[in-house]
Amino acid sequence: MKIKRIEDSVSLRRSLDQGTEEQRKAVLEVIDAVRTKGDAGLLSYTEKWDGAKLDSLRVTKEEIIQAYEAFPTSINVVIQEAAANIREYHEKQVKQSWLSTKEDGTILGQKVTALDAVGVYVPGGKAAYPSSVLMNVIPAQVAGVERIAMVTPPAADGTVPAGVLVAADILGVDEIYKVGGAQAVAALAYGTDSIKPVDKIVGPGNIFVALAKKEVYGLVDIDSIAGPSEIVVLADETANALEVAADMLSQAEHDERASCVLVTTCGELAERVALEVEKQLSDLPRVEIARASINEFGAIYVTESMEEALRVVNELAPEHLEVMTKEPMNLLPYIKHAGAIFLGRYSSEPVGDYFAGPNHVLPTNGTARFSSGLSVDEFVKKSSIIMYSQQALEDNVDKIAAFARLEGLEAHARAVEARFKKRGEF
Amino acid sequence: MKIKRIEDSVSLRRSLDQGTEEQRKAVLEVIDAVRTKGDAGLLSYTEKWDGAKLDSLRVTKEEIIQAYEAFPTSINVVIQEAAANIREYHEKQVKQSWLSTKEDGTILGQKVTALDAVGVYVPGGKAAYPSSVLMNVIPAQVAGVERIAMVTPPAADGTVPAGVLVAADILGVDEIYKVGGAQAVAALAYGTDSIKPVDKIVGPGNIFVALAKKEVYGLVDIDSIAGPSEIVVLADETANALEVAADMLSQAEHDERASCVLVTTCGELAERVALEVEKQLSDLPRVEIARASINEFGAIYVTESMEEALRVVNELAPEHLEVMTKEPMNLLPYIKHAGAIFLGRYSSEPVGDYFAGPNHVLPTNGTARFSSGLSVDEFVKKSSIIMYSQQALEDNVDKIAAFARLEGLEAHARAVEARFKKRGEF
Repeated sequence: MKIKRIEDSVSLRRSLDQGTEEQRKAVLEVIDAVRTKGDAGLLSYTEKWDGAKLDSLRVTKEEIIQAYEAFPTSINVVIQEAAANIREYHEKQVKQSWLSTKEDGTILGQKVTALDAVGVYVPGGKAAYPSSVLMNVIPAQVAGVERIAMVTPPAADGTVPAGVLVAADILGVDEIYKVGGAQAVAALAYGTDSIKPVDKIVGPGNIFVALAKKEVYGLVDIDSIAGPSEIVVLADETANALEVAADMLSQAEHDERASCVLVTTCGELAERVALEVEKQLSDLPRVEIARASINEFGAIYVTESMEEALRVVNELAPEHLEVMTKEPMNLLPYIKHAGAIFLGRYSSEPVGDYFAGPNHVLPTNGTARFSSGLSVDEFVKKSSIIMYSQQALEDNVDKIAAFARLEGLEAHARAVEARFKKRGEF
Repeated sequence: MKIKRIEDSVSLRRSLDQGTEEQRKAVLEVIDAVRTKGDAGLLSYTEKWDGAKLDSLRVTKEEIIQAYEAFPTSINVVIQEAAANIREYHEKQVKQSWLSTKEDGTILGQKVTALDAVGVYVPGGKAAYPSSVLMNVIPAQVAGVERIAMVTPPAADGTVPAGVLVAADILGVDEIYKVGGAQAVAALAYGTDSIKPVDKIVGPGNIFVALAKKEVYGLVDIDSIAGPSEIVVLADETANALEVAADMLSQAEHDERASCVLVTTCGELAERVALEVEKQLSDLPRVEIARASINEFGAIYVTESMEEALRVVNELAPEHLEVMTKEPMNLLPYIKHAGAIFLGRYSSEPVGDYFAGPNHVLPTNGTARFSSGLSVDEFVKKSSIIMYSQQALEDNVDKIAAFARLEGLEAHARAVEARFKKRGEF
């Protein structure tokens, strides 16, 4: 692993995968086919791309029972405990409706209402993560969303991984469809005979899923489009090189385009971590993926000061930031951009991936500059409330009318004036 | 104005203007040109499309002074009072960072941080509304955004409307550029020599602006893409037909594709409003626009019951909802989908457009099902905080490792285990 010059940190920014023009066209075709052919379109794409010839899309109760049989009870219990932690954390995010009043009789406020229906995309194959089910479903449930529909591409034999079904069942989600790709997104957005449309689509997916979500955005809401995973470790001389390296590799194993970076004020630590990464890398099951990630998007930066280190961290705006310094909490005020902040040596990043409670769906590729992890906020909407009294309107009608006329909107002015005029004056 | 059958209400849903393939290509070309040519590209597009030959893009202090001279002081005072109301309302939306602790030493929380830089698009020409400046800038300021850059297309003589400049100056915004269209969006997203890039772009614009925002979404954040304005009035027999009609016309005058709808339990009111709309329409300055809107996207529905009326309202999910019933506040719990809710006869919709305090940037065309008006929330992001103690990790390390291994992510499991292993065991 290489110790690089800070000036080169910009090279870590991965170009956003916007897809090719061909991919976009393919996605538009799929969306169009689903809109016109409905379920028949879904079944035919599922046969074409997933190799699964299905009669119906919905996962049955029998399949759930079979999933439990195929699934170790010990893990089942872990999933339940993780779900409880995630639920507890997200419950703290719940916002209340509010009202405020003035003595002229004005009432202003904000009504918080859950979305009616949400679609959760769960990738298939090796990326069919039960943790992804927990992290996407629970915030919606805590928000009060009444209908949650899950879609996931089946294997060629028509099955869905047991872990995904068990996780869904633990959460009480029973509307699950065996369909993936752009066709699943189109079905959730436009609806078919078997899949009623939803108001928002969340969950990770490949480039076709991402492009389809981008296409239907506006008709329905979507979560942000996630890139490959990343970790930045901010460390001083008190950090343990073995632990730093292990945490970096935990991200590197995700994806060849994952990024793991150490920013440290300690040159000696930098060198030890570089060695340690090589050592631990060699016997990882996913060594090839991790090595590619380390080689292309891995970096170690040694800075002159903690101020400089913090500047680099904020420039990188990482998805995951670990702070392994003497007094990590003291640095919190200076961290401006990070999806999740892990403080201290016992807060290894996988603690957050699976168990602690905060969401693992986090902004990637620098988007922590302007966006946040998935939360309850993304499953509610707010309506503003305005209730003026006669007194309040009387006191302000001339100002409001003047402002409206300034903007050339006479009917706006007349509307407020109408309350104080008789028919003849109108 | 026509009294229609409820079943036809679906006809009011306006197809989303996604732009044509030609428009999209034009926008991609513009974005590309701005990325490669920078300011030169901006200046040449401004000459081409706005007819203004400029030497530099930034509005000068002299231009601000001239704007004040050209602007009536009386309105200046109204803008200041409106700004104060808007600021007061949005301050109630500010969310605090929070921490929660457990007795095993765990600290979890959420850090709320303002975005660094925001770009505000202000349309030119007749739609250059000072109120739009207030509504887009103030929430960002209340959130704590340090840099706010405004862009607006100049007239052919190179000027920007005085009202826009005065409103910006009242708010303390002094970074204003005379550039509009897709080129302005591209500049804000990618940066040029004179315009540094921002993290989020907000504000209304034409189809080119909307398409450009959609293109740069992901690199920067954007607000939702707004459609034409709409109002639904929910009224019973206590409502005043003259006032209902006036409020409906206040939306109809905005745009030929604006929509105004009355949903009422009272057939007599329906008939009186229909007549009243015709009467008031005839002498409106923007009669042609309003008439087109009323004819194509106006409707009156008479329902059997208030329950049915509320169902229609929620199906329409309007941008603005006025409730003119005997006890409007009592209906609030049943209103699920609306951008802003105006309760009672003195809460005419323009009260919210200009003055009361809540934001007038609201979800249109049914998107109130899943989205909210512009608020302070859109100008902050949240980082989750995880700090596990040795005890907390020790108690849970096996569960976390088991979950990671279930998902095939060995390096994740080893990372948490690393805290409790000696070198030789690794």
